[in-house]
Amino acid sequence: MLVGIGLMPHGNPVLEPPDGETRKLAEVLRRIGEEFKDVDSYVLISPHNARMSDHLGVVMAEHLVSWLGFEGKELPGKWETDVELAKKIYRAEKEAGMPVVDLNFASLKGQYSRWPLSWGELIPLQFLERKPLVLMTPTRGVSRETLIKFGEVLGEVVEGEEKRVALIVSADHGHAHDPNGPYGHRKESEEYDRLVMELIKENRLDELPSVPEELVRNALVDSYWQMLIMLGAMRKAEFKLKSSAYACPTYFGMAGALWVRKN
Amino acid sequence: MLVGIGLMPHGNPVLEPPDGETRKLAEVLRRIGEEFKDVDSYVLISPHNARMSDHLGVVMAEHLVSWLGFEGKELPGKWETDVELAKKIYRAEKEAGMPVVDLNFASLKGQYSRWPLSWGELIPLQFLERKPLVLMTPTRGVSRETLIKFGEVLGEVVEGEEKRVALIVSADHGHAHDPNGPYGHRKESEEYDRLVMELIKENRLDELPSVPEELVRNALVDSYWQMLIMLGAMRKAEFKLKSSAYACPTYFGMAGALWVRKN
Repeated sequence: MLVGIGLMPHGNPVLEPPDGETRKLAEVLRRIGEEFKDVDSYVLISPHNARMSDHLGVVMAEHLVSWLGFEGKELPGKWETDVELAKKIYRAEKEAGMPVVDLNFASLKGQYSRWPLSWGELIPLQFLERKPLVLMTPTRGVSRETLIKFGEVLGEVVEGEEKRVALIVSADHGHAHDPNGPYGHRKESEEYDRLVMELIKENRLDELPSVPEELVRNALVDSYWQMLIMLGAMRKAEFKLKSSAYACPTYFGMAGALWVRKN
Repeated sequence: MLVGIGLMPHGNPVLEPPDGETRKLAEVLRRIGEEFKDVDSYVLISPHNARMSDHLGVVMAEHLVSWLGFEGKELPGKWETDVELAKKIYRAEKEAGMPVVDLNFASLKGQYSRWPLSWGELIPLQFLERKPLVLMTPTRGVSRETLIKFGEVLGEVVEGEEKRVALIVSADHGHAHDPNGPYGHRKESEEYDRLVMELIKENRLDELPSVPEELVRNALVDSYWQMLIMLGAMRKAEFKLKSSAYACPTYFGMAGALWVRKN
């Protein structure tokens, strides 16, 4: 069953918060880790792993190995894939006609069957107890409906499990908050981030699909597609928001949110 | 244009040949490197990189970084992707309706856009001058016709290029040559390897598609699917065999072959 959902940023600042807001955000991330410390597995959706134009991915490789930090922040470590759950999800998505591939590397099994991790996974994982993972990758090149449907199928598979599973969505939001940052300043980044936090806090996630495409594009976000998958998965049970926070200590917006199952 | 093709093994023994046959094989591999030392780019097809059940892959990540050696044989290094050619190939394959995905990692561009290499690529690359690559991955879960067609489309794209491109096919053959090896002894490994060498030396590669499925399966090979892609690509111009060799110093068969363009 799906015991809850953690929306987690993947920016380096949450590791060493430079200000009060970021400290509050890091506190929410620690609460997510605490809430899910007894789950059996995580499903982790990350936008900074394999990136394919028009296919989602489910990593089948047995071993998940730290490979790439951001701005020199290396976070070594090794995690194991919940291969059984990964296979169930992949098969169900294929049967539902979803554009998805299974991702393995080098060998199909054993010590050489491994897959690299980037900061997109490694930063959320710093706040979570080490447990088996199903690593999944979103895509921007399919319709919103497809992403939501993909999430619904994911939610159904997880709900059908005896295992207690938490869904972790790695996401950063607008990337143009700082005139001196790499993407400059755009008012849409502020607008998008404010809207996303409203939808989260006011229990209005069902409005996500109606966020204008132009706003998503101009805000330079790194969150929208995996949040649509999250929305689909959350339709399969009832969840309540337990904690949330937002911070923007550099040029990109970061949000943390914890939802737990109502019953 | 496609200036030639190198069929190259990826077994550690070619790096330090333990016997005369393997030395001769390594000599063929050095000749492949010598023949292609002036090409602009390689297209490299490897069975030990991303492995997907029913999709081929074209790596778009800008940087290709050594990640995984076999039995502790690490071969560090970094190569660059020929992104322009990779995009052309991917687009042409998509337009032809091929089951293919573009593979990037972490970021779409820049220093973080990188992809891991295994022994499947690193061993052939030891014999080749460092040049831009298009790394592609075969799949076993599509029809033989699809693999050949994929190769034909690849061949057409490369033939349409001003760049001089060599196709490198990384492949090992039967894996059950040694009763004490990890896969034991099977007569089909010998039979398959003998047949492949006959087809190569007697200019009968067109017979590849009629190799019985049972033989391919029972011989435990790691070559058949990418050789079908090679066959498709080779149909787009005329090539002659310049050099070939076979060796089986451990439990798996290794073949090297160099074809060059006739005109």
